[in-house]
Amino acid sequence: MAPSRDNLSAVLHKARDLRLEQKELPEPGPQDVVIRIHKVGICGSDVYYWHRGRTARFVVQSPMVLGHEAAGVVETVGSQVTHLRPGDRVAIEPGVPCRLCPICKAGRYNVCPAVQFCATPPVDGTLTRLYRHPADFCYKLPDHVSLEEGALLEPLTVAVYGCQRAGVGLGSRVLVCGAGPIGVVSLLTARALAAARVCVTDISPSRLEFATGQGADGTVLIDGASEEELAGRVVAALGGPPTAILECCGAAPSVRMALQAAAPRAKLAFVGRGPPDMDLPMVTITAKELEINGVFRYANCYPLALDLVASGRVQLGPLVTHRFTLEESESAFQAALDGRGIKIMISVHD
Amino acid sequence: MAPSRDNLSAVLHKARDLRLEQKELPEPGPQDVVIRIHKVGICGSDVYYWHRGRTARFVVQSPMVLGHEAAGVVETVGSQVTHLRPGDRVAIEPGVPCRLCPICKAGRYNVCPAVQFCATPPVDGTLTRLYRHPADFCYKLPDHVSLEEGALLEPLTVAVYGCQRAGVGLGSRVLVCGAGPIGVVSLLTARALAAARVCVTDISPSRLEFATGQGADGTVLIDGASEEELAGRVVAALGGPPTAILECCGAAPSVRMALQAAAPRAKLAFVGRGPPDMDLPMVTITAKELEINGVFRYANCYPLALDLVASGRVQLGPLVTHRFTLEESESAFQAALDGRGIKIMISVHD
Amino acid sequence: MAPSRDNLSAVLHKARDLRLEQKELPEPGPQDVVIRIHKVGICGSDVYYWHRGRTARFVVQSPMVLGHEAAGVVETVGSQVTHLRPGDRVAIEPGVPCRLCPICKAGRYNVCPAVQFCATPPVDGTLTRLYRHPADFCYKLPDHVSLEEGALLEPLTVAVYGCQRAGVGLGSRVLVCGAGPIGVVSLLTARALAAARVCVTDISPSRLEFATGQGADGTVLIDGASEEELAGRVVAALGGPPTAILECCGAAPSVRMALQAAAPRAKLAFVGRGPPDMDLPMVTITAKELEINGVFRYANCYPLALDLVASGRVQLGPLVTHRFTLEESESAFQAALDGRGIKIMISVHD
Amino acid sequence: MAPSRDNLSAVLHKARDLRLEQKELPEPGPQDVVIRIHKVGICGSDVYYWHRGRTARFVVQSPMVLGHEAAGVVETVGSQVTHLRPGDRVAIEPGVPCRLCPICKAGRYNVCPAVQFCATPPVDGTLTRLYRHPADFCYKLPDHVSLEEGALLEPLTVAVYGCQRAGVGLGSRVLVCGAGPIGVVSLLTARALAAARVCVTDISPSRLEFATGQGADGTVLIDGASEEELAGRVVAALGGPPTAILECCGAAPSVRMALQAAAPRAKLAFVGRGPPDMDLPMVTITAKELEINGVFRYANCYPLALDLVASGRVQLGPLVTHRFTLEESESAFQAALDGRGIKIMISVHD
Repeated sequence: MAPSRDNLSAVLHKARDLRLEQKELPEPGPQDVVIRIHKVGICGSDVYYWHRGRTARFVVQSPMVLGHEAAGVVETVGSQVTHLRPGDRVAIEPGVPCRLCPICKAGRYNVCPAVQFCATPPVDGTLTRLYRHPADFCYKLPDHVSLEEGALLEPLTVAVYGCQRAGVGLGSRVLVCGAGPIGVVSLLTARALAAARVCVTDISPSRLEFATGQGADGTVLIDGASEEELAGRVVAALGGPPTAILECCGAAPSVRMALQAAAPRAKLAFVGRGPPDMDLPMVTITAKELEINGVFRYANCYPLALDLVASGRVQLGPLVTHRFTLEESESAFQAALDGRGIKIMISVHD
Repeated sequence: MAPSRDNLSAVLHKARDLRLEQKELPEPGPQDVVIRIHKVGICGSDVYYWHRGRTARFVVQSPMVLGHEAAGVVETVGSQVTHLRPGDRVAIEPGVPCRLCPICKAGRYNVCPAVQFCATPPVDGTLTRLYRHPADFCYKLPDHVSLEEGALLEPLTVAVYGCQRAGVGLGSRVLVCGAGPIGVVSLLTARALAAARVCVTDISPSRLEFATGQGADGTVLIDGASEEELAGRVVAALGGPPTAILECCGAAPSVRMALQAAAPRAKLAFVGRGPPDMDLPMVTITAKELEINGVFRYANCYPLALDLVASGRVQLGPLVTHRFTLEESESAFQAALDGRGIKIMISVHD
Repeated sequence: MAPSRDNLSAVLHKARDLRLEQKELPEPGPQDVVIRIHKVGICGSDVYYWHRGRTARFVVQSPMVLGHEAAGVVETVGSQVTHLRPGDRVAIEPGVPCRLCPICKAGRYNVCPAVQFCATPPVDGTLTRLYRHPADFCYKLPDHVSLEEGALLEPLTVAVYGCQRAGVGLGSRVLVCGAGPIGVVSLLTARALAAARVCVTDISPSRLEFATGQGADGTVLIDGASEEELAGRVVAALGGPPTAILECCGAAPSVRMALQAAAPRAKLAFVGRGPPDMDLPMVTITAKELEINGVFRYANCYPLALDLVASGRVQLGPLVTHRFTLEESESAFQAALDGRGIKIMISVHD
Repeated sequence: MAPSRDNLSAVLHKARDLRLEQKELPEPGPQDVVIRIHKVGICGSDVYYWHRGRTARFVVQSPMVLGHEAAGVVETVGSQVTHLRPGDRVAIEPGVPCRLCPICKAGRYNVCPAVQFCATPPVDGTLTRLYRHPADFCYKLPDHVSLEEGALLEPLTVAVYGCQRAGVGLGSRVLVCGAGPIGVVSLLTARALAAARVCVTDISPSRLEFATGQGADGTVLIDGASEEELAGRVVAALGGPPTAILECCGAAPSVRMALQAAAPRAKLAFVGRGPPDMDLPMVTITAKELEINGVFRYANCYPLALDLVASGRVQLGPLVTHRFTLEESESAFQAALDGRGIKIMISVHD
């Protein structure tokens, strides 16, 4: 296979100004690989950047390649890379920390202050034909795991880490707030981790229906009912108060209802992104000794997510509802913005 | 010593209606002891009941003996009690759980839904000459630990548990919000646990001065400055962002400032009682992966608090600034309401 | 249903002297239930007592009813029991602690020095028509869980607790040493907990075949090969060194081989009962920082085991290979001693 | 200050063949510093290499500079180093891991299979005038901490990590087996961590006397008494069975006695290096659910050890009983081999 000379990339210049441009061909450093990108999933943060040029904390100030949920095939490897070879199919963990600070050394590299994360300004992302990445943040896929599943490992890793931070395990009664892509993979992961029951909430009946199809033991529609009323429905659906809560929507009423419903000593992992501030019921938090854990991306979880898929415990296929090519990127982002389907996937190479 | 026939007790009938009354003499059940109460410290919750007939969640609806920070001398022991004898000086852990529910069995008895806690309606407290209690929740004091120190084990236990929930240990940079009695014992405990540095905040310069005298490495006065400005002062006082936070005042600006200042992965133990709801900076909590732990009383910490005092690592003596007799209870509560001194102590027997 | 007057019981007087005798009818205390026992599984310790009058630490010195893996139907309830009613089908957790000591209060009731455990001298067991037990150590079975499964919750709980002590979870490479009943339920549990792969070892090819039928990803026959050779086979079977080890056979060569194979920081739960002393490779333990955890029965795990069965994650049915009536108890013990099948079950009532 | 051209080094060619030789002057890589070494403590492993050319697992096969307990002054810094400057006084953490493997990423870099550790064959150590090291494994010393204390941070870090692995904290009853340098710093650390009581054992009365002078609450001489008898003395000295055990001598009778004495659920950190195999009482380990943790060097503990010294909680000065110059290295090793004093220190520069 002749090395590719094409490096077409989806570059965001500013809000609503996405351009397909050729970028320089990347060369691997000694511990890097260069990857021919095949599949890139679209995440809510990509849509935010494309639509508004920013998320809550980050602003696009210079042209940036979008995309961070990616898988592809190794094209070239650096001189010191031993565990990967050209032709290996890999999933890419998109955040690379400094490796030197006390936080990295203690194993919490996701909160390293110097972490470089794909498509978080000013770091370029993966929506590009050829992409360079440190080899140790690339995970070889078994033959029976598809590149599309490889790209979907990214949101699945969010769920795995969120379940860790919420203490999900055998016997947990799990409440997942929000039935978007992260909510659904959280549901799948909680079930794979032997949770006793999982209840999912959302404001959209069709999303709840999808969650039921994915194995939710119960769902609660967030309608006009009171916090207490909704909390009661959650407790009924779970056969008891939730012991682990994954907040995947970021809406204050959802968080408040979850805390209202929670069992003593329940843990809430705050995965969602919502308003910068939120009014929380501190009396409830203290009286039941609840634990609220902020979640920022993930650490040490990519291999676990891969194992969930490779073992067949989690089926990611049904999540992909729409597919586009790299050249159709703008349409892909528009579809995501319109809230169509669950997960939108871009093929960079077939 | 002839058994006492006097059981004068400080009984709250309703807000501002405290009466000294004779209560029936208690008889110990097989696993109980009856204690001649000597010292009872006044806690903020006692003052709330006395002044307003309620706290945030609990309402006085029938006459109730006040007081839950107590120590005394064993008078009689039940037939199955083996580790205590008449004449033993003991501190009393005031909350007794059901011992049967899954929460009790898992060792988290403080959040047992059926826990009975002294002077939490409708359970009678310890401001009484003779008091019956399960023997296993009474802790024998070594000779060199005074009964006043025994009574003060209660707030010290709050601090020990709070430090556990905030992960205070070797090398911690600790922020204690609030320099009242709980804040001060938290400071003393954090220092005993080998925290690297401890910074205390308050709105009162004189309380901060007291905290400095008790070993605070730095103090920050909560004046009109902005959250960011105050957070910066805390970081400067600690030589880095706090890794453990004990919230002992319950005021929202204090909590927000603490989260602003916090290090990545810092833990906040929410010990204080403040408004039922609080506006929290969720973006900060997620971006730094902060952990917010509600704290409700304590479990399994009385022996640890006793050890801190018995070993001389913590000196509680300076905390008692005012003393009253049982007959002067009303004046004692008034002094506490007026915010006089740090800790007010009532002598039930000398 | 008229209350039963028959209390035929299998009473061990001394080694090989098992008699069927009528015992007094039990009366429930206020927090007890009396249970019409239906099913009792035979455990290795029962066989030891029957055959030799003792296990490693305990000696039968007065007549004792055997049996501790039991389920039945509630016949009468004590005056303070609220969560059970006559007619409820329940599994019985056979160990009841003192509830008063610091160990109980800290949630580790299995190592309470005063724990009373069925059929551990001198405490009577469950091989009896009518049996009294504290209600809070009885777990109501859903309709679709059989009484035989209820009895089998006991060994399953051993496995659940062992998996906790060995840190089994998502992605674990698990080595189970021994393919007896405890080894097999450990295999089933590890798989339910999302272990990546499970390898089982034994000296018996037929037991390994059974383990393969129960889902083992690989098996290693302990034949005459060297420690290093066997460890290599385990690593090959697991696709990497084991990260969690459940020692369920108690043989020194098995333990040594497991430590040889172990990954850095692997945890070994020592579940099996073997010789009182064992020669361990300390250099291996330190160089890889292995963690060796003694396991004594279990705590807080019965509800989790029930959940595994009720959710269909674990199928216990295939384990029962032989069945006897109470009157045939001696034959049942003989069958167990002869090593016939996997699990032997006694029907006390049908 | 003119850059030094002298790089005299203590190079071990084979057992008992230590030569003072000039080594090439080191140049820092971009993230390195070059340090003018001032103080190097002698550790037991150095003595093993010098005397026998090997330790249990490692063999000297080519000339190697000895020494790994070191502190000095930064001479030059690499181009990317920002937190250190020439003239900074630093302590050196001697083990540098690969930073790339899953174990490193999870924060357990001490068991990284590719770790490079000073004076562990074939990696050169610090007994050299000028030494190159990654800057992030060098810790700046406050002005009031001496370079000798800086060198002693290495054994102190062993103690800090050992205390973590043994779960030492407030209220612990700690048994330290062995009163050599590691035993003594473990004693000092346990006291600083608010252990309730610390008992030290040894076969040498004079070492126990030294331990008493360093604050041991009790000592037990390992004489000809039985395991049970010695365990009883330990329990008496601690006022109860030990809850945390630091094994710092590696002798089987010491380990066995410690397990005999241990409280239920006690943790033993196996710090010492003894015979490769050891006969352990498995019945005791299971019946009390003991946890035995192998300890291999340390991770993430250097800053904590520095904090213990900088805060004055631990005084390391009294440990240094003999001092030599680099040129006297052979005499220094001989003194260590002869078991003279507690800690022997070599001055490389004054």
